[in-house]
Amino acid sequence: MEHPVTPFSIDRGSLHASLTDTAMESMNLLNQVAERYPKAISFAAGRPFEGFYELEQVHEYLRVFCEHLRTGQGLTDREIARMLYQYGPTKGIINDLIARYLAVDERITAEPRSIVVTVGAQEAIYLALRALRAEQRDAVVAPDPTYVGLTGAARLAEMPVLGVPVGEDGIDRDELVAVLRRARASGLRIRACYVTPDFANPAGLSMTLESRRQLLEIAEAEQLLLIEDNAYGAFRSSDRRLPTLKSLDRAGHVVYVGSFAKTGVPGARIGYLVADQEIAVDGVGGAALLADELAKIKSMLTVNTPPIAQAVIGGKLVSNGFSMVAANERERAAYTRNLQRALDGLRGRLGAIPGVSWNQPDGGFFVVVTVPFPVDDRLLEHAADHHGVLFTPMRHFHSTRAGDHQLRLSISTLTVDQIEQGLDRLAAVVREAVGAV
Amino acid sequence: MEHPVTPFSIDRGSLHASLTDTAMESMNLLNQVAERYPKAISFAAGRPFEGFYELEQVHEYLRVFCEHLRTGQGLTDREIARMLYQYGPTKGIINDLIARYLAVDERITAEPRSIVVTVGAQEAIYLALRALRAEQRDAVVAPDPTYVGLTGAARLAEMPVLGVPVGEDGIDRDELVAVLRRARASGLRIRACYVTPDFANPAGLSMTLESRRQLLEIAEAEQLLLIEDNAYGAFRSSDRRLPTLKSLDRAGHVVYVGSFAKTGVPGARIGYLVADQEIAVDGVGGAALLADELAKIKSMLTVNTPPIAQAVIGGKLVSNGFSMVAANERERAAYTRNLQRALDGLRGRLGAIPGVSWNQPDGGFFVVVTVPFPVDDRLLEHAADHHGVLFTPMRHFHSTRAGDHQLRLSISTLTVDQIEQGLDRLAAVVREAVGAV
Repeated sequence: MEHPVTPFSIDRGSLHASLTDTAMESMNLLNQVAERYPKAISFAAGRPFEGFYELEQVHEYLRVFCEHLRTGQGLTDREIARMLYQYGPTKGIINDLIARYLAVDERITAEPRSIVVTVGAQEAIYLALRALRAEQRDAVVAPDPTYVGLTGAARLAEMPVLGVPVGEDGIDRDELVAVLRRARASGLRIRACYVTPDFANPAGLSMTLESRRQLLEIAEAEQLLLIEDNAYGAFRSSDRRLPTLKSLDRAGHVVYVGSFAKTGVPGARIGYLVADQEIAVDGVGGAALLADELAKIKSMLTVNTPPIAQAVIGGKLVSNGFSMVAANERERAAYTRNLQRALDGLRGRLGAIPGVSWNQPDGGFFVVVTVPFPVDDRLLEHAADHHGVLFTPMRHFHSTRAGDHQLRLSISTLTVDQIEQGLDRLAAVVREAVGAV
Repeated sequence: MEHPVTPFSIDRGSLHASLTDTAMESMNLLNQVAERYPKAISFAAGRPFEGFYELEQVHEYLRVFCEHLRTGQGLTDREIARMLYQYGPTKGIINDLIARYLAVDERITAEPRSIVVTVGAQEAIYLALRALRAEQRDAVVAPDPTYVGLTGAARLAEMPVLGVPVGEDGIDRDELVAVLRRARASGLRIRACYVTPDFANPAGLSMTLESRRQLLEIAEAEQLLLIEDNAYGAFRSSDRRLPTLKSLDRAGHVVYVGSFAKTGVPGARIGYLVADQEIAVDGVGGAALLADELAKIKSMLTVNTPPIAQAVIGGKLVSNGFSMVAANERERAAYTRNLQRALDGLRGRLGAIPGVSWNQPDGGFFVVVTVPFPVDDRLLEHAADHHGVLFTPMRHFHSTRAGDHQLRLSISTLTVDQIEQGLDRLAAVVREAVGAV
């Protein structure tokens, strides 16, 4: 008889601090709530609209990409198969197509060699932070509230995130300068400022052209690197689009992070970054680009982004004349309709309740509602349990108490009927809580 | 007129230390050599055999996977499309298929919830090290020489790698215990020992059944976590396969890292880990598995592994009765033939030269040749320039000087003719260098 075995266990306290971080813990709880209430109407999920998915699309995109390689680049089927099936270059295989797309949709001039294709924007953000975080004094600046993926990547890279308040036109520029000054005075080295100029997650608001220009002036004056995350820019109507920071950037202060997870196919998980900054060695530049350094980090992290997944996005780009703005016409109409329906529905249901208000995004996935009572996970659970509706307490996106009385509604995956029904339920939650105040 | 702009540049010295680490720098140089000499016969690339790739395979695997969901799980086309195209669960969508494969091919019993599907084995290794590295005193133990991806992941996670010499049957168990003792005495906390029991990269050698058992005994006695990397195990003939550490593991000391990059489709970049260790909180277990904690890290790193790429591997698994051993019969024959050809070819060409010898792997991708002169990047460049042949200096895999007179030959992607011609060229390099000693 064998002797009994004590199962080996690992103490959570011995694991990396990000795993017991309250910000990360609470995001995990939120995900679990969504799983626990699959039948609730969810204003919590930030996933893109899925009403137009068809199983044949993936086959078509793959065939279009292969045909592009065959006729556009003269590759043989054997060479094409090798490109799809074999290990690929760390920086990616569709960099030239992404460069064309950036020229068409964003008026960004990017050399393919300055692009690194990544597993979603999340890996791109982590690569940038991991490269920039060399010493304990290194920190990153971000709007408060900010995207939870930025917070997560920073926790993993052990980099403090310094919050800057946001106004209706994005990150507050005066406050940004003040935060930079204070941080430097206290011995911190600020490696970058993260911003999402268009329909920022979670607040849903955008920077004006003027505020974009001001931010770039600050970057030049302060020698500050900007990490521009543009996951949602393609969802503004074509006639009202605003230039990206990167397209306005003259001196190379912007690392541009893009994603096809919202505009392409989420299930391909293709993001990328444009990092055309020169790397100086002993004060002399020209040896390499920041993209080369980030590719080295990527080679230690995921080696390369799945070529098969890149091929799917490559095919979608070729199929749509390199324009994701064009490819997402139907989706954009759905988001615009949903957002309008949500804003109208909030007015009709909550407009007369004192202390209740909401912001007015002109596109994107999100609306933020302010209420006269605290919004926390307990309220969320109550709303899920008793009213069948989910939302996201804004406190999870803040490092301050500023979001304690706010909730985020995401409208991207819902039908019009679900929005109407969901808002009925939300209104019941609000009326109940107001009555209880 | 606008004022002139000074391009923003970033000093390499201000970036993360992994980017200027000599081990990482030299691997980068090696990759560049391969790109600079595309016409050389390369014994350097560790990529799998690509002679059987056909463009239709990816379509077929996708269709088989969808059909499996349709008939096996009763999903509608709409649900299947959502699974492929939408964001997916962080742990993965083919965990149940991987569990069946592990039972069929490796006699490993793994619950799907203990599996995290990753972007190649590289992400799996990084997840494990990133989770385990909580404090400055945390270190990992590995064979010397070791896989460069382990070194890279450890550099990124800022975790020292303590080398243990290897013999013909893998990591030296006595030395391992001695290294553990010394490390602990010097205040280090050893979080894990990384090993590849089958055809380890770079040495190509395997652990015997007896040495596997001894290693597990040490793990139990020392309360040591083992990270077992099994990228090549399927390439041993079915009748001579040895049990994985994980299948012999009674107390849960083994985190198993697998990859379909060699056996499935490299271009899908699908790896995974089995991490069924219980996480204890305040000394009480049962709250979660290590897999849950690793999934949290993954959510901050890549969010989830591309479902489309997982579907390709899922289809290949279903198509082959969940056996990658069965799926790779032709490939295994090619590797066996190539390895035999290389060993015979070395004997015929270099057998009579004093001081020249090589090891005798019984499968896998690699052979290590020992020569009576130093093998460095200069010799490699000379071989590429003047003889049109590439190999890998073993010094890049060692933390000691032990590999200074050795080179690694990889035979996995070559044809028999290329092996013969490549060995002719290698023999010329060796004869020239021996003459010059």
